[in-house]
Amino acid sequence: MSGDLSALRWDANGLIPAIVQQHDTKEVLMVAWMNEESLRKTLESSETWFWSRSRKELWHKGATSGNTQRVTEVRFDCDADTLLVLVDAAGPACHTGERSCFFRVLGLDDVTTV
Amino acid sequence: MSGDLSALRWDANGLIPAIVQQHDTKEVLMVAWMNEESLRKTLESSETWFWSRSRKELWHKGATSGNTQRVTEVRFDCDADTLLVLVDAAGPACHTGERSCFFRVLGLDDVTTV
Repeated sequence: MSGDLSALRWDANGLIPAIVQQHDTKEVLMVAWMNEESLRKTLESSETWFWSRSRKELWHKGATSGNTQRVTEVRFDCDADTLLVLVDAAGPACHTGERSCFFRVLGLDDVTTV
Repeated sequence: MSGDLSALRWDANGLIPAIVQQHDTKEVLMVAWMNEESLRKTLESSETWFWSRSRKELWHKGATSGNTQRVTEVRFDCDADTLLVLVDAAGPACHTGERSCFFRVLGLDDVTTV
């Protein structure tokens, strides 16, 4: 299996971070890791596939929860080391049940000098 | 200088990735790294500060270009290892002059089996 993903800069473990964004509302839903195989499966199936660093296996988002993410576009940044994956998410992206993983706010209080 | 940023999970180098998003259009502008000091300066000054891994120094976004980013909110994700920084960007976020660093699209052609 070969192909030209040579434009991308994979890290030492062969991974690249992928920001997942709802295509219409532009809400940032989650961040996960892809290896080359998961990116290939994502582009070929138009659903998100990631690499689980803890389980060391491919992970089809929504395979168990049903909350798949239909991919509308995959973008990459100027130094080619981060992906931005635009999707239509069928349900919550977060394992907590929240629509986005970024549901908590950090305040100035959190950095108050003690 | 101390403070409570203990909720966050910094990597082995004491860094955390920060996704920068325009607060109103929700466009994802860039991704950069913060250490604790740059996050503290970001929250205290309401302008983005990052850690340059290549130059090994703090970096005030816009200090030379004038394209500062006024921070409206800092969020963090469920596993507390990524920040989402909402900003009002005074100009292009990208060193190429593009408004967003994510100006390139990856297509299925890029993974065509040869």
